[in-house]
Amino acid sequence: MKLQIDQERLAAELDALGMISQDAPPAVTRVVFTETDLRGREFVKKLCRDAGLTIREDAVGNTFARWTGDDPGLAPVGTGSHIDALPSAGRFDGTVGVLGGLEAIRALASAGYRPRRSIELLIFTSEEPTRFGIGCLGSRLLCGLLDPATAGGRLDRNGVSLDVARAAAGFEGPLSSVRLPPGYYSAFVELHIEQGPLLEKHNVPLGVVTAIAAPAGLKIVIEGEGGHAGAVLMPDRHDAFTAAAEIALMVETGARSTGSIDSVGTVGVCEVFPGAVNSIPSRVRMEIDVRDTDEARRDSVLRIIEKACAEIAVRRGVRINLELVNADPPANCAPLVVDALVEACKTQGLPCERMISRAYHDSLFMSRIAPTAMLFIPCRGGVSHRPDEYSSPEAIAQGALVLAQALAQLAS
Amino acid sequence: MKLQIDQERLAAELDALGMISQDAPPAVTRVVFTETDLRGREFVKKLCRDAGLTIREDAVGNTFARWTGDDPGLAPVGTGSHIDALPSAGRFDGTVGVLGGLEAIRALASAGYRPRRSIELLIFTSEEPTRFGIGCLGSRLLCGLLDPATAGGRLDRNGVSLDVARAAAGFEGPLSSVRLPPGYYSAFVELHIEQGPLLEKHNVPLGVVTAIAAPAGLKIVIEGEGGHAGAVLMPDRHDAFTAAAEIALMVETGARSTGSIDSVGTVGVCEVFPGAVNSIPSRVRMEIDVRDTDEARRDSVLRIIEKACAEIAVRRGVRINLELVNADPPANCAPLVVDALVEACKTQGLPCERMISRAYHDSLFMSRIAPTAMLFIPCRGGVSHRPDEYSSPEAIAQGALVLAQALAQLAS
Repeated sequence: MKLQIDQERLAAELDALGMISQDAPPAVTRVVFTETDLRGREFVKKLCRDAGLTIREDAVGNTFARWTGDDPGLAPVGTGSHIDALPSAGRFDGTVGVLGGLEAIRALASAGYRPRRSIELLIFTSEEPTRFGIGCLGSRLLCGLLDPATAGGRLDRNGVSLDVARAAAGFEGPLSSVRLPPGYYSAFVELHIEQGPLLEKHNVPLGVVTAIAAPAGLKIVIEGEGGHAGAVLMPDRHDAFTAAAEIALMVETGARSTGSIDSVGTVGVCEVFPGAVNSIPSRVRMEIDVRDTDEARRDSVLRIIEKACAEIAVRRGVRINLELVNADPPANCAPLVVDALVEACKTQGLPCERMISRAYHDSLFMSRIAPTAMLFIPCRGGVSHRPDEYSSPEAIAQGALVLAQALAQLAS
Repeated sequence: MKLQIDQERLAAELDALGMISQDAPPAVTRVVFTETDLRGREFVKKLCRDAGLTIREDAVGNTFARWTGDDPGLAPVGTGSHIDALPSAGRFDGTVGVLGGLEAIRALASAGYRPRRSIELLIFTSEEPTRFGIGCLGSRLLCGLLDPATAGGRLDRNGVSLDVARAAAGFEGPLSSVRLPPGYYSAFVELHIEQGPLLEKHNVPLGVVTAIAAPAGLKIVIEGEGGHAGAVLMPDRHDAFTAAAEIALMVETGARSTGSIDSVGTVGVCEVFPGAVNSIPSRVRMEIDVRDTDEARRDSVLRIIEKACAEIAVRRGVRINLELVNADPPANCAPLVVDALVEACKTQGLPCERMISRAYHDSLFMSRIAPTAMLFIPCRGGVSHRPDEYSSPEAIAQGALVLAQALAQLAS
């Protein structure tokens, strides 16, 4: 079988999808269930239909494009990623796994390959946590890791619930129907940009992921006392923002204090209320992300933050409410799929490196119901979640090629 | 002359104006040139017309309601304040000086008093800096302390210029026409809530302001480097928000370090970009307010902040742009007007205390072109800029009574 990736077509499709943005390109913003997200979905679904795939969408908008195999009774092989994008992000995070997965399927079909198992391309809903404050919404529901009875009531910043937003986007039915049983897929592979610098540094074209780091999300609300910035003297203040500033620096200090380079902590969201230059902040809302490849070490950072919040609340006379939004365990990838990827690299004559994923992905959750692994391609400077995120057309095509090779093996 | 304040009418009018809000009452939000602000203006102008006053509005929307005196060629006496309100503020800041001023004029007319000089009630545009980032927009232009050639180009957060916003609100003509010549008013008095705790603590019904504290406003933009919150390791980060957190704590430390209780420093605005839980902040915008009764001491706090920014920028590898938006000198009140207020308190048998104003007011700027002083009434707990800001109807009526008495003396 002679596999051939159409590098230019794939690059052009990624470019075209990148132009569907709430921001001015090259900045890509595609928040779940916005009109822009729906246009992005339509763009990809049309390409899938043109490739002869059959499309199904579930109640939360996860999209499945199936190439039916010769033995349709067998559990299919899954591949895919997401197309939603954080505010002011780039063109490649997620999209490479969707359009690269589609290109892999097209390459297999062009080469005359016939799968025994069906191959299903997945587009997961809201891998990014932008709108509803939790990442991997679609894959969490698929794998039964989010309670469908309460998930629909999650609110965005404007008070719009997930149920209202998905209905407006055309996705209806009970969220409980989204869940797939373990064993539904015989294997799952996600192609993705590395979002780190190692492959570029080592000049290796492909990374085979053997484990995915464990993220935890915190929401903190600080309630202090507002007042006039001129009239309330410093010793009488209960400023919510200076408390927030101390917490933010403690997140940094906590992540740096574990002794491991793998611990990271970030305050990505901070909203100050009422937000006027001459009003002392009465309330601050922050969202914090803490990750590590080691769950116990990550949780030790969470405990440092919790302890700091308790101390700051007492010292500054403010109320601090801390909510652990998610604290998922890390995932080990399945040897079955890891081996298939390493084998595919060899077959195609491309070197690869075994590595861990510091970013988290829908694969973290898919690993609960299917033997799962990921394939990484280099991205320039390790940069992602920014408009200047970049992977070369060659690198993407090599990823799609190895993915096709691995899918052929897994679906035979 | 037997002066009589209609305490219930004045309280009812303040309540009614407080209901005109962009927020749910008791929170009052009236941002300049919004539909709500315009409704508030209409409400006050109707009351002025009902009281027989003649209304003029200038190009920036400053409103002058005149009771023409027997000798209209003489410079009038001015009184007044503002009706715009910060996000989620209270009912009394500014409005007491406008509706209390109107009530003072009505009381004088009811008592059969005839002024020799005209008495003019002023409603200043945008005392609060909410929309265009600078406080006392109207009074700065009145006094020639803001360049009319560039002021019209000031932008709000949505990129709407002052010129566009004022035209949409119906205020047209060159901003240069707003300026009044020195000597235009023979005297100016502003009635206001104290926004501090002293009158309440000392159980004194009235404060005569002898000096107004000196405010300075800073805008800071921090440009760091964004990236994925999972993938960029801690030593490789240039997080704009942790830099902002350090600056915020330095503002606090700086204000506390002068050795004077009169130094205050506040970060009231902090906006984090891109603002997603798993994105490292690439840019932060902060607005800082530093005040003191002593200009040199205030400027020493500014220098502490500037020095900290320079050090943080180098250490964290971020760019910090610091803009001094305003740094006005403090004002000493005019003995002519101070004495008239003290005399009026005596005449009405009400004790008063000489005090300084820690908050700044349109009077700070009016003092540049007219002999100016302020009259303070107590507010509960010294609280303002909050929905629970409160002055009793009795306290407000006493303020209006003394104001009327002083206006009678100044206009005779």
